[in-house]
Amino acid sequence: MNGIHLIADLYRCGGTAVPLTQREALEHLCVGECRDAGLTPLGAYFHQFLDEDGEAAGVTGTVVLAESHLAIHTWPESGDVTLDVYVCNFSRDNSDRARLVYRRLLDAFQPEDAIEHEVVRGRRGG
Amino acid sequence: MNGIHLIADLYRCGGTAVPLTQREALEHLCVGECRDAGLTPLGAYFHQFLDEDGEAAGVTGTVVLAESHLAIHTWPESGDVTLDVYVCNFSRDNSDRARLVYRRLLDAFQPEDAIEHEVVRGRRGG
Repeated sequence: MNGIHLIADLYRCGGTAVPLTQREALEHLCVGECRDAGLTPLGAYFHQFLDEDGEAAGVTGTVVLAESHLAIHTWPESGDVTLDVYVCNFSRDNSDRARLVYRRLLDAFQPEDAIEHEVVRGRRGG
Repeated sequence: MNGIHLIADLYRCGGTAVPLTQREALEHLCVGECRDAGLTPLGAYFHQFLDEDGEAAGVTGTVVLAESHLAIHTWPESGDVTLDVYVCNFSRDNSDRARLVYRRLLDAFQPEDAIEHEVVRGRRGG
């Protein structure tokens, strides 16, 4: 289970490539970035929230990886996003792949501000 | 996005109620504990790994919640489990619900040892 867990709370995202209200586009982005980085998506579940008028609002979703998981939640009304990328290093060191996915998603969302945590999993003192 | 993210790396789990190799039972346990605690499962994706002989091995899965997500990965060969429970407090404080799910899953798995982290999401200094 040893591995790295990258955590970000992103504020006022200005990226326009993928709107924070678009479930399919966000799923495509997240699964694609994992695959492009050499990780192994096994499946994904993304949910579309609707506002009171039935219009697309936030999105919440996870990508289950052979190497662990990615999770994302969006709050389009404020432009905020939370992101988790956890990979374990069971058969090889996947840390660089996790950092690549994480950095590319931050590049896509372009937050004005971010609170970031890095948790070393499966080892004391992490 | 403000909320609490409970993270555990569990070693040598001795709980026998739900074997770490059983995808359906683990999904049922995780979804059920979320629902029983008053959280709102929207969907789940759980994957069964197989060993070289085609026998059930580890399980990896996520439960997507209206309040954020739960993620679990098992390594039955060593009895290890990683667990994440993240809930945001968008419409109400869900921290107690997250702690209840987390505690009940630890009770089910009965680890001999655990490394735990608590990350406050969406607020500086967390």
